Amino acid sequence: MVFKKITLIGTSTESFDDAADDAIDRAEETLQNVQWIEVDELGVEIATADNREYQAEVTVAFELEE
Amino acid sequence: MVFKKITLIGTSTESFDDAADDAIDRAEETLQNVQWIEVDELGVEIATADNREYQAEVTVAFELEE
Amino acid sequence: MVFKKITLIGTSTESFDDAADDAIDRAEETLQNVQWIEVDELGVEIATADNREYQAEVTVAFELEE
Amino acid sequence: MVFKKITLIGTSTESFDDAADDAIDRAEETLQNVQWIEVDELGVEIATADNREYQAEVTVAFELEE
Amino acid sequence: MVFKKITLIGTSTESFDDAADDAIDRAEETLQNVQWIEVDELGVEIATADNREYQAEVTVAFELEE
Amino acid sequence: MVFKKITLIGTSTESFDDAADDAIDRAEETLQNVQWIEVDELGVEIATADNREYQAEVTVAFELEE
Amino acid sequence: MVFKKITLIGTSTESFDDAADDAIDRAEETLQNVQWIEVDELGVEIATADNREYQAEVTVAFELEE
Amino acid sequence: MVFKKITLIGTSTESFDDAADDAIDRAEETLQNVQWIEVDELGVEIATADNREYQAEVTVAFELEE
Amino acid sequence: MVFKKITLIGTSTESFDDAADDAIDRAEETLQNVQWIEVDELGVEIATADNREYQAEVTVAFELEE
Amino acid sequence: MVFKKITLIGTSTESFDDAADDAIDRAEETLQNVQWIEVDELGVEIATADNREYQAEVTVAFELEE
Amino acid sequence: MVFKKITLIGTSTESFDDAADDAIDRAEETLQNVQWIEVDELGVEIATADNREYQAEVTVAFELEE
Amino acid sequence: MVFKKITLIGTSTESFDDAADDAIDRAEETLQNVQWIEVDELGVEIATADNREYQAEVTVAFELEE
Repeated sequence: MVFKKITLIGTSTESFDDAADDAIDRAEETLQNVQWIEVDELGVEIATADNREYQAEVTVAFELEE
Repeated sequence: MVFKKITLIGTSTESFDDAADDAIDRAEETLQNVQWIEVDELGVEIATADNREYQAEVTVAFELEE
Repeated sequence: MVFKKITLIGTSTESFDDAADDAIDRAEETLQNVQWIEVDELGVEIATADNREYQAEVTVAFELEE
Repeated sequence: MVFKKITLIGTSTESFDDAADDAIDRAEETLQNVQWIEVDELGVEIATADNREYQAEVTVAFELEE
Repeated sequence: MVFKKITLIGTSTESFDDAADDAIDRAEETLQNVQWIEVDELGVEIATADNREYQAEVTVAFELEE
Repeated sequence: MVFKKITLIGTSTESFDDAADDAIDRAEETLQNVQWIEVDELGVEIATADNREYQAEVTVAFELEE
Repeated sequence: MVFKKITLIGTSTESFDDAADDAIDRAEETLQNVQWIEVDELGVEIATADNREYQAEVTVAFELEE
Repeated sequence: MVFKKITLIGTSTESFDDAADDAIDRAEETLQNVQWIEVDELGVEIATADNREYQAEVTVAFELEE
Repeated sequence: MVFKKITLIGTSTESFDDAADDAIDRAEETLQNVQWIEVDELGVEIATADNREYQAEVTVAFELEE
Repeated sequence: MVFKKITLIGTSTESFDDAADDAIDRAEETLQNVQWIEVDELGVEIATADNREYQAEVTVAFELEE
Repeated sequence: MVFKKITLIGTSTESFDDAADDAIDRAEETLQNVQWIEVDELGVEIATADNREYQAEVTVAFELEE
Repeated sequence: MVFKKITLIGTSTESFDDAADDAIDRAEETLQNVQWIEVDELGVEIATADNREYQAEVTVAFELEE
């Protein structure tokens, strides 16, 4: 059994929770067997966004198929 | 005056805020004089949970009785 | 183009999101050209607050005027 | 569901694997519901041991009973 | 010459060495030109495994073809 | 032989040395076989103290009885 | 909007700047919407290179297509 | 309620305690509502000082007026 | 003698050296007695710049006047 | 009593334990009064070795003679 | 001009300041052109010492002769 | 095969690249079998230098003779 980890940054105009969910949603659309995620960093983009854009950088662990 | 620190992981199916509150609730039930908590890590357990389980690892500082 | 970074701690009796927004609000009142913020630490003050006081320490980056 | 984490250092005259197992054995003798461990540090004590004493500092996570 | 790094977690019921080899074996099956690996974290999964499952999170560096 | 580590914060109105000693004194009153301590953080509390309160957060390692 | 991050190591016999550019060039050849890169580590390989080989390990962030 | 943090380095020819106090003294002369300080680094300057110059780099947290 | 540290991010379309110099130039225009700088992070902004924009985040230490 | 620390990297074609022992053996051949070692990093060299070469970077502490 | 850094651990039965001075004294006896030291870690050895033995691990920087 | 690592700080009035090369040059003059170097820190000394003095702290790894 081998797991792989990748790093995604989800975004939301609402909250950090939504930003993390955004990244998890994306991971589950494209990856089988997502196991857990770890939050690496939280931030807010202001200058290039209409409103505050909450960002959650997360590491996604999923099991590789054999 | 001496403080002690312990590490708890609270869980919630709703949000990181609730997961942190879960750990603080538990600390306040069993410890006197809880002073502050620090968030060490945030994560989401997916594989072994029915839904996404938000987790907050926190360090709880409380004052020891003399 | 030169940016400067400063460190603020926002507080809220509601949530970590509100605590971060509190710090960003303050930054935008007093600084021009706020670009982005990074969340450094999250914590909860308990002993000296009436209720749980959520705290978000953030680094604020803004562009200096030439 | 709330987890607690504690830190133990296991020792062995044979290997780092045995040193980690030593700490896990101790944890399982005295704690219910041990979930996982993380290795924090590996080292070898030489001066005060007859032979090389392999040491594994581990964090043990276990579920608290409700 | 450009290298890429990816993160894998190998598992073994025997030892940390075997867990690291498990991840390297997987890398070599699917990647050309694996150069070196770095061990990021060691851990043991207990609750969801029949026996202790040793885990080694490793970063694998390989050379990209031009 | 297994060691356990706990985290204490000692306080003093005099110096960081005294704050560390305060934590060690407390550890030795309640624990057998204290082996060594590591200083994790030094700080000074000002707002809620009459005078400057020096604080030393230390990790205390002690040997568990078999 | 979701971003992904990957880690590359660029190389150059000239300078650290060129080594970072080498990695960015590669990223832009194979990825759409590269946004920014962060330098993780700088080093120089000597033993297995004819001359000093400057290396720059960088994290590349790019926007995923929806 | 919003706090701000700044970084100062105090110096002393006597001790690390005095170097930290030197930085706190300066902070209290120029800032209202200093709350606490954290010690970031300790060092000793030798080459450019007549005697050993003890240095304490500290982060000072103070409450901003509304 | 007390020093203060602030954090600036210099930018350049040429190189990391120029980006660091950009931040130092700015510091010397507005601050007396700049003593030394430390490089905290290097990065390259790509998406919002015409060309690659090299960035150097630096901490600037300067002596406060008495 | 003053201790000195140096950093060695031991190698083995067998295991991480042997790689650490390799470094300790070397330290004990050339240094008096080796006290303890700390494992800093584990890795495996693949490209330039016939087989997998396990590597253990360790810090060796020894007491200086007066 | 090239500097070299080495790591020493000074000890004292009195205080952390004395432990740091102990390491600096040793460095100055055997090295020319000591420039500055950085404190890496503070600790107290209890089990193998008659009294508490304060320890200061320091990095010593000195200029190499050309 | 055992490697040793030492830490040097090279200096240059021109650039960070030259400062790193300065340290590597010195290492190669006095050590056999230099294998690779890692850049630990970059900085610029301003107050005690005629011009800006770029500094590169590097760790040098070399193979010990058997």
